[in-house]
Amino acid sequence: MDSSNPIGLFDSGVGGLTVMSEVVKALPNEHILYLGDTAHLPYGNKSPSAIIRFAIENANFLMRQKIKLLIISCHTACAHAIDILQTLLPIPVLGVRDPGFCDLLQATRTKRVAVLATASTIASGTFQTLLQAEKLHVYPIACPLFVPFVEEGLQNHAAAKLIAEYYLSSLKGTGIDVALLACTHYPLLSTVIQEVLGTEVRLIEPAHSTAQMAAQLLKERNLLNPSTSSPIYRFFASDDPEKFRRLAKIFFPFPIEKVELV
Amino acid sequence: MDSSNPIGLFDSGVGGLTVMSEVVKALPNEHILYLGDTAHLPYGNKSPSAIIRFAIENANFLMRQKIKLLIISCHTACAHAIDILQTLLPIPVLGVRDPGFCDLLQATRTKRVAVLATASTIASGTFQTLLQAEKLHVYPIACPLFVPFVEEGLQNHAAAKLIAEYYLSSLKGTGIDVALLACTHYPLLSTVIQEVLGTEVRLIEPAHSTAQMAAQLLKERNLLNPSTSSPIYRFFASDDPEKFRRLAKIFFPFPIEKVELV
Repeated sequence: MDSSNPIGLFDSGVGGLTVMSEVVKALPNEHILYLGDTAHLPYGNKSPSAIIRFAIENANFLMRQKIKLLIISCHTACAHAIDILQTLLPIPVLGVRDPGFCDLLQATRTKRVAVLATASTIASGTFQTLLQAEKLHVYPIACPLFVPFVEEGLQNHAAAKLIAEYYLSSLKGTGIDVALLACTHYPLLSTVIQEVLGTEVRLIEPAHSTAQMAAQLLKERNLLNPSTSSPIYRFFASDDPEKFRRLAKIFFPFPIEKVELV
Repeated sequence: MDSSNPIGLFDSGVGGLTVMSEVVKALPNEHILYLGDTAHLPYGNKSPSAIIRFAIENANFLMRQKIKLLIISCHTACAHAIDILQTLLPIPVLGVRDPGFCDLLQATRTKRVAVLATASTIASGTFQTLLQAEKLHVYPIACPLFVPFVEEGLQNHAAAKLIAEYYLSSLKGTGIDVALLACTHYPLLSTVIQEVLGTEVRLIEPAHSTAQMAAQLLKERNLLNPSTSSPIYRFFASDDPEKFRRLAKIFFPFPIEKVELV
């Protein structure tokens, strides 16, 4: 494996760019490819078999670009496909699931936690299984309207607050002290979610710890890029690259000059 | 062409079943195939080229089942692909666009009308072009959150009213007397939309007139099914047939026993 090869990330759309921006900070010498599978978004209300198919197609596309590490930057894709991709691919595969799980374990004192995610992630039971094995009491909440609100830029609209109250009111009185935002769109709603849950509940999102885990893995396997010349970032979308570029600004603090259609 | 062949309908999901239920009433002897392209839904925020590709794939699938008439039961697909499918296919192709346009023309007195639709339908400019050619003043409004609200069964939630006010407040004082619900999901929000627009604005949705136009076309071309034995209805979905069957109940008043995966 050539350590100068790029890291590959994919998500159904722009949400995973929050992970990429942390990877850029943690690994400033690495070339990075990002694929947004916008032709199939959102993943959150699709079936496991469809998500697995999309994930394999995305991984195959990135493998053809000779990536050295894959980071699945979408919780729904992780929930259904990380084990499959770890088995299929000849390169290391990380996802946002395990860092999220580790962060949650470390942060809780009451051992009562909430997981907020898409309908498909919640239905997969992946976080419930992991957390119950650690004797945590888990409150899984599917929040299907959160992604469309963020995609429409209406995360601060009064209706978003009403919807957050609708989804999260059952958490009152449960004694949770941590809530995992297990969808890369949800951090953009964190003000609203925090208002509804109260300041005693800590919100966690795993973009930062995913990037830390990626850095550690590359170091351990001697795969850090030895070059310190300017890294190359390339962005791909399976539909409407211009819309991707426009929406990307919400999630990614660096300029994106070009998005390529795949 | 065999007049005992079925009619084919497609939509991105279950919304087009409102059209199918009107076709069932208008043409009770006809066999009908319905395809929901749930692997790619929603269409409303995808690019024209993606929607054209999906529409051609859907039409090809239905053509292989030997349909005698295609009814595009999705406004977004109509907006981008009806002309292409009418050119490509050797059978008659109808869509919800033209009946909607005709209904609007007949209903308005003030010659000021609103068209409420997905972002992609509005961006296509299809209704604006048709209506401006008739000297109507058109107010096109994209309402991207309406479909997710309906899909989540939250069309009567207080947040839906707030979102309707957000999208439609610019119509106040414009003198419109008719609003076309140019998305098959929107009739489920008609109570909320009517509250916001006021009772002086008439809401129009073209499912009924699309079915009437289909009946007239089959009659004119001698394509009515001569048999009066029980017609066969078959339902197909490109993802998660069980979810399709569950959601279909909101849109279709008859029982659906089986949905086949394509």
